[in-house]
Amino acid sequence: MSAPENTKNRVCDLFSIKYPIIQGGMVWCAGWELASAVSNAGGLGIIGSGSMYPEILRDQIKKCKEATSLPFAVNIPLLYPAVQEHIQSVIDLEVPIVFTSAGSPNSFTSKLKSHGITVVHVVSSVKFALKSEAAGVDAVVAEGFEAGGHNGREETTTMCLIPSVAKACSIPVIAAGGISDGKSVLASMILGAEGAQLGSRFVASEESSAHISFKNAVVASGEGDTTLTLKELTPVRMLHNDLFRELSKAKENGATPEQLSEILGKGKAKKGMFEGDLEKGELEIGQIAALLKNILPASEIISDIVQSYRKAGGNKLGLRFKF
Amino acid sequence: MSAPENTKNRVCDLFSIKYPIIQGGMVWCAGWELASAVSNAGGLGIIGSGSMYPEILRDQIKKCKEATSLPFAVNIPLLYPAVQEHIQSVIDLEVPIVFTSAGSPNSFTSKLKSHGITVVHVVSSVKFALKSEAAGVDAVVAEGFEAGGHNGREETTTMCLIPSVAKACSIPVIAAGGISDGKSVLASMILGAEGAQLGSRFVASEESSAHISFKNAVVASGEGDTTLTLKELTPVRMLHNDLFRELSKAKENGATPEQLSEILGKGKAKKGMFEGDLEKGELEIGQIAALLKNILPASEIISDIVQSYRKAGGNKLGLRFKF
Repeated sequence: MSAPENTKNRVCDLFSIKYPIIQGGMVWCAGWELASAVSNAGGLGIIGSGSMYPEILRDQIKKCKEATSLPFAVNIPLLYPAVQEHIQSVIDLEVPIVFTSAGSPNSFTSKLKSHGITVVHVVSSVKFALKSEAAGVDAVVAEGFEAGGHNGREETTTMCLIPSVAKACSIPVIAAGGISDGKSVLASMILGAEGAQLGSRFVASEESSAHISFKNAVVASGEGDTTLTLKELTPVRMLHNDLFRELSKAKENGATPEQLSEILGKGKAKKGMFEGDLEKGELEIGQIAALLKNILPASEIISDIVQSYRKAGGNKLGLRFKF
Repeated sequence: MSAPENTKNRVCDLFSIKYPIIQGGMVWCAGWELASAVSNAGGLGIIGSGSMYPEILRDQIKKCKEATSLPFAVNIPLLYPAVQEHIQSVIDLEVPIVFTSAGSPNSFTSKLKSHGITVVHVVSSVKFALKSEAAGVDAVVAEGFEAGGHNGREETTTMCLIPSVAKACSIPVIAAGGISDGKSVLASMILGAEGAQLGSRFVASEESSAHISFKNAVVASGEGDTTLTLKELTPVRMLHNDLFRELSKAKENGATPEQLSEILGKGKAKKGMFEGDLEKGELEIGQIAALLKNILPASEIISDIVQSYRKAGGNKLGLRFKF
């Protein structure tokens, strides 16, 4: 992998990567195999620490460093119980970039930056993008309503969110939600993003640590098969299955947030996405899953994006990135 | 206005218009003044018949014909009580193009086409796009979750819907939802659309028949100020106000669909959008309203789109339209 070729794109500059393509740090799907494969292919790979005990995360970081000499990141959801230990681990093990999410950007940005770590915060609104910028983060991921997993209450879609955040902020904006190929990367850049983060597309990759049954369910899913639900607790977009239907029925019957929380129980994301229990587990995935038809190696996903971006004419525009 | 300059774009060819920019046929906002202004500026103006008695619609069509010699259309929501009379009016008065919505494309497509009328159906899913194509429509409007007014239950956003519909259908696809300027028009074309329909942007136009208080509320609104609600009845995206909050509270307290329908009552859209009662009326608008900052003449909206599309580099791409 050669050095970054394009110095005009601030996302490439910030992370010292070749392509401004970021792999989301999805729980149970984003271990060192996926993160290192994406980084080795010229994008930015991210280890998703939200599903890891502290010792697991440390082991994953070490393995990722062995598998790539290129930059990678760790995503840390700030509401996670082990957040303090995770923060210490990325500092101790000199992880160059941290993506924080699901919490306040004020919590750890200063501490991480004082250790020379580049910090990105994931937001779903202009309000939190501005709060993140004020907290000193280096970039934001602006994630639309169509994205999988946990999501914002405003339900702002990528089409509406990206221009709003790009207009409000001076720091680079990375688009997320509904992006899976070179055309959608290009569309997001025209709307004002300087990079794109893809989650669902990388869940259905060979290196993803998701259970093969979940990967197969993702590429077999169709239109209308996901819903953003559990707004009474923390909004999350999931694939329809027995668990989703049980939650929906309970809601229709007037269940309280506590009752919904009890149905959801513990460990359902692991059960579904990692252990492959497609009916009793929680299957977090984005709307764009309906367009995914195959499980590919991470390097092929990236080269496909580059080719389709070129084919769509992205290099002819005055954008901050040319592939 | 010169004749259409570009014969490669099927939306321009189909409607014999200069720019593939369509003004949505919004209830209470889209009368002959707006429709004729848009058509005279090179786009396709649409009279929204959903808020009109049969004699009003006939009068509006006649006035529109006096105000422009260029093609315009009428939007007919198929669940409207006066639908049979509206269909007869567009046939009798030789309206060249009809957009149908909120109902089955099988109901009237054959009848309209037997009278030489071009028919477009509004859909929010691939399933209904294919059903529309099979029914013989000439094009579909694919409308994402972020759009104002009535909307689909699948909640598929424009980013995810347009590529899916464009891939599934052979007929031209017109994108709607989250589009307000040349950048978003270009993004939608990269995603596979051949034209774009804008609703909210034209609500906030000088020629819109919306009450000035509603127009002012639209351009003053911000992020998170609209919600797609009333999924128990017919899903509709509306601006937050007293009526919205009353409906939300009733839902939280377990109101039945019948009780919600009673709160909504009759004539609330007219009260809000046409009479300007901003708290008791129903204010239908899209998420993109948060980005609108001014009320402009329709011709300026279109020339702004053309200019920003050019500036974004749209003409350099191999798309089916160059401005």
